[in-house]
Amino acid sequence: MEVAKVIIISIGDEILIGQIANTNATWMAEILNSNGFNTVEIRSIADDENAILNTLKSVRQLADLVLVTGGLGPTKDDKTKQIICDFFDSQIIINDAVLAHVKSFFAIRNKELTELNYKQAEVPDNCEVVHNAMGTAPGMYFVKENIHFVFMPGVPFEMENIMKTWVIPEMCKRLFTKNIIQKTILTHGLGESFLADKISKWENSLPTHIKLAYLPTPGKVRLRLRGIGDNRGELQMEIEKKIQELQIIIPNLIYGFDDDLMEEIIGNLLRKNKLTLSTAESCTGGFIAHKITEIAGSSDYFKGSVVAYSNEIKEKVLGISAKNLLTYGAVSEQVIIQMAEGVRKLFDTDYAIATSGIAGPSGGTTEKSVGTVWIALSSSSKTIAKKFNFGNHRIRNINLSFLSAINMLRMELLNSD
Amino acid sequence: MEVAKVIIISIGDEILIGQIANTNATWMAEILNSNGFNTVEIRSIADDENAILNTLKSVRQLADLVLVTGGLGPTKDDKTKQIICDFFDSQIIINDAVLAHVKSFFAIRNKELTELNYKQAEVPDNCEVVHNAMGTAPGMYFVKENIHFVFMPGVPFEMENIMKTWVIPEMCKRLFTKNIIQKTILTHGLGESFLADKISKWENSLPTHIKLAYLPTPGKVRLRLRGIGDNRGELQMEIEKKIQELQIIIPNLIYGFDDDLMEEIIGNLLRKNKLTLSTAESCTGGFIAHKITEIAGSSDYFKGSVVAYSNEIKEKVLGISAKNLLTYGAVSEQVIIQMAEGVRKLFDTDYAIATSGIAGPSGGTTEKSVGTVWIALSSSSKTIAKKFNFGNHRIRNINLSFLSAINMLRMELLNSD
Repeated sequence: MEVAKVIIISIGDEILIGQIANTNATWMAEILNSNGFNTVEIRSIADDENAILNTLKSVRQLADLVLVTGGLGPTKDDKTKQIICDFFDSQIIINDAVLAHVKSFFAIRNKELTELNYKQAEVPDNCEVVHNAMGTAPGMYFVKENIHFVFMPGVPFEMENIMKTWVIPEMCKRLFTKNIIQKTILTHGLGESFLADKISKWENSLPTHIKLAYLPTPGKVRLRLRGIGDNRGELQMEIEKKIQELQIIIPNLIYGFDDDLMEEIIGNLLRKNKLTLSTAESCTGGFIAHKITEIAGSSDYFKGSVVAYSNEIKEKVLGISAKNLLTYGAVSEQVIIQMAEGVRKLFDTDYAIATSGIAGPSGGTTEKSVGTVWIALSSSSKTIAKKFNFGNHRIRNINLSFLSAINMLRMELLNSD
Repeated sequence: MEVAKVIIISIGDEILIGQIANTNATWMAEILNSNGFNTVEIRSIADDENAILNTLKSVRQLADLVLVTGGLGPTKDDKTKQIICDFFDSQIIINDAVLAHVKSFFAIRNKELTELNYKQAEVPDNCEVVHNAMGTAPGMYFVKENIHFVFMPGVPFEMENIMKTWVIPEMCKRLFTKNIIQKTILTHGLGESFLADKISKWENSLPTHIKLAYLPTPGKVRLRLRGIGDNRGELQMEIEKKIQELQIIIPNLIYGFDDDLMEEIIGNLLRKNKLTLSTAESCTGGFIAHKITEIAGSSDYFKGSVVAYSNEIKEKVLGISAKNLLTYGAVSEQVIIQMAEGVRKLFDTDYAIATSGIAGPSGGTTEKSVGTVWIALSSSSKTIAKKFNFGNHRIRNINLSFLSAINMLRMELLNSD
C-alpha cells in the first residue's frame, strides 16, 4: 500500500480526567507522520474491559495498523491482557525470553521479583513478542483479518524505544509498497514566517512528489521534506540536491538534520578539535550544563559549570567585581563578560559560556524587562557578549537562553574550524 | 441520571500529524471531571466529512453528552456545519443575533466583514445557539434521541469561555449528576508492584464507590483515589479518612498531593525555615540545580551549584583530596562526602547535596556497574551518604538521582522541622 492508515488507542484514566495530556499520542503521531503513515484517529479510552474490547472491535474498518498503549502494567487495574486474549482468541503462556529479561532486569537493580513481576512474562500464545529493552512489560504484535495490531506499555520512554526500534522499521517493511524518504532540516535563528519568506522561491521549486512541512517549536523551526516514489535511489538523490540548494540560501541557520541535537553537534566539534568547555550560569540555573551532560561521552570535552544563583557566589567563586555588580547589575554586559572569563580561568577550559538574565515571571524593571538575557562566549583570543529578549515565560526563557548560548559557540567553532 | 457519560471529539489535522498535543481535550476533561461528569472517551479525528459523520453516528450508544470542538472556522477546510445539518436534519438559516454579534465584533476592531464572516451567522434552524463572547463562530446545541450535543470552536480561549459560562452550568442543570471527588497521592521510594504489596490490605478496605488507580512514572507512583456519591461533604470526609489511614502505613513514601512537585515542596520547606541550599553535581550534570531553579522564586533559598564533571575540578574547586580520588575513585562514599561538605563550605549554605555516579551507557566496571550512584547530604551537624543503582538508561539515571537526592533533603527537613 502507498499510505497506511493508523489508529492510536491510548488506554488510561489519567487522560480522561484531564490529569495529563495525551503526549504519548502526539509523539507517536509525529514519528508516524514523518515516516509516511497516516494517523486517521486518536482515541483515549478508559482502562475498562468493555471499553477496550468495544474499541478494538470498532476500529477494524478504519485502519490498517492499530497501535495501543497502556494497560500492560502488573497491578490489578490493568486488564488489557485478558481482553487481548479474548479478542485474538489466544491462550496465555509463559514466554521464557521475557521471563529471563524480567529476571535480569531486577537482578541488575538488586531487587526481588514479586508474583506480580512474574505475570509480566505471561503473553498470548499467538502473538509475536516485541522486546521492551527499557522495561519489563513486553510489546505484542498480532495480525487479524489483515489488520496489524501492536500493543505497547504506556510508560513514555519504553513506548518510544519500541516505536523507534521495532514498530516504525518493521511496519514500514510489512506495510509499504512505495518508497517514502524523508529528511528533516533543523534551523535556529529565524521564526517560521520570516524563514518561509526567505526560502519561498526554493519552496516553490519543489516537485509535487516532494512535500515540505514547517514544524516550529520555541527556538527552532524544523523543515521536513518528504518524498514518495518508485525508485529509492533517485528519490534520495533528488532530496539531497534540494537540501544542497537550501544550504546555499540559509547556510548559518541550518544546524543539523533529523534527530541531531545542537548540544551533540557542538560536542562533536569540541571533541574533534580537542577543545574543552565550561559554563557559568545564572538565569539558566544549570540547564546548559544539564543539556550538555545528557549526551553520553560529554566528559571528553565538558569540565563543568558554576551555577551562580546569588551575587555573593558570583563575587566569591567567579571573581566578579563588586563594583560592577553594584554599578551595572548582574544582568549587564560588564558582568556577563566577567562571568565567562572568570569560569574559563577557574576551570582552565578553551571556551566558556555565561548567562545572566531575568527569567521571570517577576524581577523585571522598566530598564530591564522580564526576558532580558545577556549571554557571553569567551575563548583565549576574545570574549563576545550579546543581549536578547525572550519574553515573559520562565521555562521558555531558560530553554531559549540555552539554545542561543550554544548556537553562539557553534558559530564560533565553525568559523575557527 | 447518576453520572453523565461524556465523549469529547476534537476535529483537526494538527493533532493527527503530531504537531500539537490535544490540550483542549485535557482542559475539558479536567473541568468536566471536577464537575462530576465522566469522560469515557476522547477522540481526535480529521477535518474530513466522512470522518466527522461516521464519528457522530458511532458515539451515540456510548455517551449522554457529546462535546465537539473545531471545524467551525470560516475557511474552506471546515466542513462541519454541513455535516451537522445532514446529521440533525436541519436547514441553514441566518441567525440575527449572531450576525449582530459578528458585526459588532469587527466594528470594535475597526475591520471590514468579508463574505466568509457573514457565513458565521449561518446556523442550523433546529439548534440552540450558544453565544461565543470571545469570537465570531457561535456554539450550537442539539438534542437527538436523548443524547445532548454541543459544538464549539477549536480556539482554546473561545472554547474555554463557552465551557465555563454555558456548557458546565447548563449541562449540570439539564443532566443530573452525582458528586465525584478525587485526590492523587504522590509517592516516591517504592516501585508499583512493591507498593501494591505493601498497601494491599488498605486497598481492599476501600468501599466500592471509591476506586484506586496506580499511575507510575520513573521514580514516582501516583495513587489516585476517586469517589462517587450523593453527598459531597460525606464523600470528601470518607476520602480524607482513607488518606489518613494510608499515611500511617507509608508515612515516608508520600511526599505530596495532586500537582505538587518535590522540588517545590523542598523549596517551601527551605524558605519557611530560612535555610539555604547548594549542590555539587557530577553524574547529574546540573540537572538538580536546573529543576530547583525552574521554580520561580528559588533564589530565596538556592545559592548555586558546582558541576564538577572532571576530577581536576573536583580537586581544585571543591577541595576533594587527590588521594581519595585515586584510592576510592570519584564514585565512592569518601569522595561524595567531601563533595557535599566542600560545596557547603564554598557556598556557605545550610544544606548541600552532592551526586557522583556512572550515568552510562558506558563507564561501568565489574565493581561499579552502570547506574551506580552515590548521593550525599551535608548540614552543619552531619553528612550522610547513600548508594543507589538505577540501571542502564542515562537520562532515567539522571532523573532518578535528582529525585532521590532531593528526597533525602525532604526527609531531613521534615525530621528536623
